[in-house]
Amino acid sequence: MDPEVKKKALRKFTYGLYIVTAKAGDEVAAGTVTWISQSSFTPPLIMVAVRNDSHLHALAERTRAMAISVVGAGQDAMAFAFFRPSRVEDGKMNGYIVQFGSETGAPIIAEAPAWVEVRVTDSVSRGDHTVYVAEVVNAGLLDESAMPLVLGSTEWTYGG
Amino acid sequence: MDPEVKKKALRKFTYGLYIVTAKAGDEVAAGTVTWISQSSFTPPLIMVAVRNDSHLHALAERTRAMAISVVGAGQDAMAFAFFRPSRVEDGKMNGYIVQFGSETGAPIIAEAPAWVEVRVTDSVSRGDHTVYVAEVVNAGLLDESAMPLVLGSTEWTYGG
Repeated sequence: MDPEVKKKALRKFTYGLYIVTAKAGDEVAAGTVTWISQSSFTPPLIMVAVRNDSHLHALAERTRAMAISVVGAGQDAMAFAFFRPSRVEDGKMNGYIVQFGSETGAPIIAEAPAWVEVRVTDSVSRGDHTVYVAEVVNAGLLDESAMPLVLGSTEWTYGG
Repeated sequence: MDPEVKKKALRKFTYGLYIVTAKAGDEVAAGTVTWISQSSFTPPLIMVAVRNDSHLHALAERTRAMAISVVGAGQDAMAFAFFRPSRVEDGKMNGYIVQFGSETGAPIIAEAPAWVEVRVTDSVSRGDHTVYVAEVVNAGLLDESAMPLVLGSTEWTYGG
């Protein structure tokens, strides 16, 4: 297998952008994540791959719960804000107003067009990320007409 | 949790379209799949959720190997062709010319802009789909400049 061909082929996969968060006690972690998909209708499950060396991974391992805020079209700056380490201050995380999920305690970005809270049911630690399969236990919709931001329409790539 | 809100929130997730195939002996299965993402850089892994009641699932369970052909922008008809049961005839599957992957034997759609062959390393049977984590063992690129077909730009939905 030619590594360059492998990289370019995998970059033809399509992704959205999501701010994924976890909270344990006073400790909060957040990151912009692209490797997410639904994985079951009944029960509603999602699968998300979280980098093993991330703070988000450390908290997800402890709490087995996360919140996923969808980044909407035009909200590129919001995605960019969570490329760096996250902190909550005055009800804002990295400059964005958050609310705390009733089911998981994890911060949800107030202006995200949609969000879900999830509880991990299974995980696969393989390679440099951990795949979490997690049940959707709460959901919110701020803007039904919003389009999601698609990674391929940004200047960023993640994958390959 | 309001099921309608949950459905609409999950439909804000972003997906591509892929023809996923498997082959065991003379038996071939294929289907249009949207719930796919990369899940590791090193080794290169993907995660794919396959419906438990599908023929593709039955063959993936037996062979632990699949091929994934990316559906390109404008190839909506190709995606639609694999909504129905699949058969190979005269080197074509559901009307599309296929080649057979050297690593997995699974059919690859010749006109797909990119494709990968994968071998399953782990699986999670949870809900109405099985999550397969699988290593990329071969890859091909027909058209480096092609854009992938994004589910949100079609008339179809899968998720919610």
